[in-house]
Amino acid sequence: MNHTIIFQPAGRRGQIAEGTTILDAARQLGVGIEAVCGEHLVCGKCRVKVMEGKFPKEGITSSMSHLSDLDEKEKKVLKRKDSEEHMRLACSTKIMGDVLVFVPEASRTGKQVVSKAAGQIKVKLKPAVKKHYVELQLPTLDDPLGDFERLAEALEKEHGLKNLSIDYRALQKLPDVIRKGDWKMTVTVWQKKEIIRVESGKVETNIGFAVDIGTTTCAGYLTDLNTGKVLATESMMNPQVRYGEDVMSRITYCMLNEENGLRELQATIIEGLNTIAKLAAHKTGHTPEDISEMTLVGNTAMHHILLGINPEFMGVAPFTPALHHSVDVKADRFGIEILPSGNIHVLPIEAGFVGADNVGCLIADEPHRRKEMTLLIDIGTNGELVLGNKDKLISCSCATGPALEGAQIEFGMRAAPGAIERIRIDPKTLEASYKVIGNDRWSDGKVNMLAKGICGSAIIDAIAEMFKAGIIKKNGQINMDLKSKRLRRGAKNLPEYVLAWKHETSIDQDIVVNQKDVRAIQLAKGALYSGCLIMMRKLGIAKFDRLAVAGAFGSHIDKVAAMVIGMYPDCDLEKVRSVGNAAGDGARIALLNVDKRREANEVARRVEYIELALEEDFNDRFSEAMQFPHMFDKFPHLTGILPPDNEGESLLTAENRGAA
Amino acid sequence: MNHTIIFQPAGRRGQIAEGTTILDAARQLGVGIEAVCGEHLVCGKCRVKVMEGKFPKEGITSSMSHLSDLDEKEKKVLKRKDSEEHMRLACSTKIMGDVLVFVPEASRTGKQVVSKAAGQIKVKLKPAVKKHYVELQLPTLDDPLGDFERLAEALEKEHGLKNLSIDYRALQKLPDVIRKGDWKMTVTVWQKKEIIRVESGKVETNIGFAVDIGTTTCAGYLTDLNTGKVLATESMMNPQVRYGEDVMSRITYCMLNEENGLRELQATIIEGLNTIAKLAAHKTGHTPEDISEMTLVGNTAMHHILLGINPEFMGVAPFTPALHHSVDVKADRFGIEILPSGNIHVLPIEAGFVGADNVGCLIADEPHRRKEMTLLIDIGTNGELVLGNKDKLISCSCATGPALEGAQIEFGMRAAPGAIERIRIDPKTLEASYKVIGNDRWSDGKVNMLAKGICGSAIIDAIAEMFKAGIIKKNGQINMDLKSKRLRRGAKNLPEYVLAWKHETSIDQDIVVNQKDVRAIQLAKGALYSGCLIMMRKLGIAKFDRLAVAGAFGSHIDKVAAMVIGMYPDCDLEKVRSVGNAAGDGARIALLNVDKRREANEVARRVEYIELALEEDFNDRFSEAMQFPHMFDKFPHLTGILPPDNEGESLLTAENRGAA
Repeated sequence: MNHTIIFQPAGRRGQIAEGTTILDAARQLGVGIEAVCGEHLVCGKCRVKVMEGKFPKEGITSSMSHLSDLDEKEKKVLKRKDSEEHMRLACSTKIMGDVLVFVPEASRTGKQVVSKAAGQIKVKLKPAVKKHYVELQLPTLDDPLGDFERLAEALEKEHGLKNLSIDYRALQKLPDVIRKGDWKMTVTVWQKKEIIRVESGKVETNIGFAVDIGTTTCAGYLTDLNTGKVLATESMMNPQVRYGEDVMSRITYCMLNEENGLRELQATIIEGLNTIAKLAAHKTGHTPEDISEMTLVGNTAMHHILLGINPEFMGVAPFTPALHHSVDVKADRFGIEILPSGNIHVLPIEAGFVGADNVGCLIADEPHRRKEMTLLIDIGTNGELVLGNKDKLISCSCATGPALEGAQIEFGMRAAPGAIERIRIDPKTLEASYKVIGNDRWSDGKVNMLAKGICGSAIIDAIAEMFKAGIIKKNGQINMDLKSKRLRRGAKNLPEYVLAWKHETSIDQDIVVNQKDVRAIQLAKGALYSGCLIMMRKLGIAKFDRLAVAGAFGSHIDKVAAMVIGMYPDCDLEKVRSVGNAAGDGARIALLNVDKRREANEVARRVEYIELALEEDFNDRFSEAMQFPHMFDKFPHLTGILPPDNEGESLLTAENRGAA
Repeated sequence: MNHTIIFQPAGRRGQIAEGTTILDAARQLGVGIEAVCGEHLVCGKCRVKVMEGKFPKEGITSSMSHLSDLDEKEKKVLKRKDSEEHMRLACSTKIMGDVLVFVPEASRTGKQVVSKAAGQIKVKLKPAVKKHYVELQLPTLDDPLGDFERLAEALEKEHGLKNLSIDYRALQKLPDVIRKGDWKMTVTVWQKKEIIRVESGKVETNIGFAVDIGTTTCAGYLTDLNTGKVLATESMMNPQVRYGEDVMSRITYCMLNEENGLRELQATIIEGLNTIAKLAAHKTGHTPEDISEMTLVGNTAMHHILLGINPEFMGVAPFTPALHHSVDVKADRFGIEILPSGNIHVLPIEAGFVGADNVGCLIADEPHRRKEMTLLIDIGTNGELVLGNKDKLISCSCATGPALEGAQIEFGMRAAPGAIERIRIDPKTLEASYKVIGNDRWSDGKVNMLAKGICGSAIIDAIAEMFKAGIIKKNGQINMDLKSKRLRRGAKNLPEYVLAWKHETSIDQDIVVNQKDVRAIQLAKGALYSGCLIMMRKLGIAKFDRLAVAGAFGSHIDKVAAMVIGMYPDCDLEKVRSVGNAAGDGARIALLNVDKRREANEVARRVEYIELALEEDFNDRFSEAMQFPHMFDKFPHLTGILPPDNEGESLLTAENRGAA
């Protein structure tokens, strides 16, 4: 008898024979779980968390009895390692029913590829947090002025800082710091207003932390505020993933668990932020307390949940957030373990789900300062679009879903070693060749490539190649009339195309793209494409001048493949730019320049939000956009600009890749 | 065999026979401990805390073995009632060695007389915290402005409040509060700057809490910010008393326990503040969260410890505090359990030990606005003096010690039922008559008055009467040449005067004033008097126009008796005013009027601090001031102004009392 097992956060699922251990099931499905001791119940590294009933939309009704009993030995190992509930050792726990298992970061094999690398940003250094060195006159009986007032006078005289206040936690340290440094000291001042840190002697180190909270991935950039350089990048899964993969399911979780849902989600992300702040600090020989300020971006749902604000109302008409403005909160009030007197600066948000992440993109790409009409697409679990120029900007969000990140794709997986990242299909033979992350060679159908699955950006590649080879029809159907052993019907009689044969994989099964996968991508690209069209109609334009694709996905996606499948309207390929993690860049820009914070607040209010679902033509546009365009009709201009095909493939075989 | 037992916070001590229960010892020494169940180990009301080694200066070296063992029955009762360490039941625990016992508030009999009653204050209502009612326009798809921005626009339009920010905890509640109240709401705004509370519908209740943190007693005034009325007064012992009775011993505790001493003391007072805030709120049907702001005064040591600032340096030359300015800290950062977004406003301090309590006195009595030369004396455990007028103000502090509050006096006790509060001694017979709190009749030497001890203010009375009757000589010696059975030598051969015979007391022993008591009062009044003289010299004046006596003690002290013993320089008795708990009044004034906060900061900086110990003539003045003045030389003018003596006593027998 078989049972359904789902692994989170990888989003991998499959039918597994009863009695299989979770570890074996993970191997079968290409989910990496650490197992250092060789399944001897010693190392405890293969701990996983059994989640039940927490995903209303998943329909999982399993309970602990869907697993073999916990024996004394396992109990002992678990007790030693973990006090968290519902933890099991994957190596010794057998599957006896349907289960949903969460693999904690610590139990995952292979370092995740940092997909949110810091981009090059140009910004004038004008951080909110600055350090100033002062030497004070010793007090005497004739001049017994208090420590703070003495310091404030010196700071006014030496550095022109007037009317400074002092955070009470800095005040607590002041008398000892002053005397320890023999009346020479360094103060850290926030916004020319408040002293937030006092240190003995001369200290120059001044660091901040900029974080992009994505629905799926969070990335933090430890930044030198004196030079603007990124000292360390640290990324992680958004730990809220266990409460739902997309923003709507997390909002639903908050609504269904009125008492604690929101608090739980908030605590989860704050704990996550503390973890990456600590890791990044330690990497560079600092402590988290050395961080004097943190800037944060995220979509409106991430924003509200982070701040502990009920996100319910932004999801329903008229889509009003709790506030648009940026927010500054003291770290200690927030439970963020940087300098307790330091501020957490959360960037402003626009409307609907278009949040601080998009504002981050705006201050990084600056469409509001350009004459050219720019379409800015930030593709994550939620797609956020901005169209406009210095005269007008409009925005919308579209539920692209996690498909573009590989999460709802049968063999989708994160960009990690073993993930198929590039694909070619010969239109004549319908044979496939591919590359996996961590290996430079292309597959030849013989060598075991140790493939595990398909990474998010490669899905687009696969669909584009299948479409170009005629395997996918205009309406998205897999053409079962074609003759190829790679084309067949799989589980539930679904048509599927075999990308990698079992003997080429490390998961001991064929890796396929099936009809359901194609539909998921169709929905995602349909949402994006129709969003773009409606925005263009709103601005009365038939064409835009620049296309900026942001987001982790945007960095890896092949822009030709994306245009082939019709993810966004036609545009000169030369004018298509991957702008990297522009949201994260925006967070860094805000960290480094206070004027950009003001600009962020201004531009956030200037962007007009369009709720797509309320547009009359949305349904028509959407169903049109679900179709695949006929490439030769749609992209005659591509022929000229692509580099010559060295390997004798079609001109359209996407050689013009970014640094994926 | 006898052992020394000390009861805190009463400060009572005595030699008790081994094997006596703590409860019996308490009775013998006039310390009230509850014992509802009649010593049947049932009610658990007589719990006391055994303190050892926490008072370096007390020299107590006792350990738990100085008490009888804890048996099962006692354990059971304690377990049911309390998880705190070192708690014992007074009724069943026997004394087997020297011990120091702390009687928690809950275990004390008799409601302590609130000695820090709120005075009448006149102040224009202009609180920092105001409530505003607004009705908002519902958002629509054409007007989807966020909740906060919508609210801010309405507040600007309706109430002229510009550029408001919102505390993030208020923001967290905003979306639900707005919708629950159907877009009608009340906001609480602090300093016309920040929204700190949001409530659905129309809410008028607006309350604050003003607290005077005395070294020994804390009093909190729950105040209606709409009317200025005190809704409830709640007072308590300063729970830091267990760490030392005066400011120096608490500072020493911080210094000796570098790791945690300060944190411990801070946590103790914060817990105390939470307790009285809760009690006061509950008395009036509110919750502590209803309190939107708290103002605090206290001497500089209390101020620094409250804020968690090392108090070490203010005690040594050049006596610089960590800061002079007022401080505002969010309640939640501080652990104060009022509205978490509410502010704790700590008034500014002057210098040395002259702190926010004195600033409170200043804004209440306003010497800086008067032409007349005012001497303002705030007598607590620490004496704080201000002399001056609108042109110049100087201040100093003098270590009067706890003697004036009865704490270092053999039979001294707090103003509670059973305390002797007024005394007369016949100069011819040397016989004494007295009144106890809770009983209107004068003693006749026969009836059992159930006297327990002498309250602080009555000590002055006793010394003055003894001096007038010639029992005390000019140099403070008890005159053993006089013939009276009340004059004798007691323990350690100390001369003593019997005020109440054993059969008149509830403590089964004579109540006496001994030579040590007289010396303690001499030191206290010497410190005060010499302080006054040095200040007068500093200002070059021989006389002042007004004498304002503040503080709990000041309210109860007999001003003639005080002048008789020479507590302060001569002054027209008509110009002597008890100004009650002026420090607490100042805290209330600051709560009710923001302009007075500015005034407090200004006046605090204008007062020039004099460190008495550094004045050349201090030693001479001090030893002179230790003497008792010859009343008929010093107070010839008193004869005329006193009311006729109805009971045939000396004109100087202090009938002209305040409402003690």
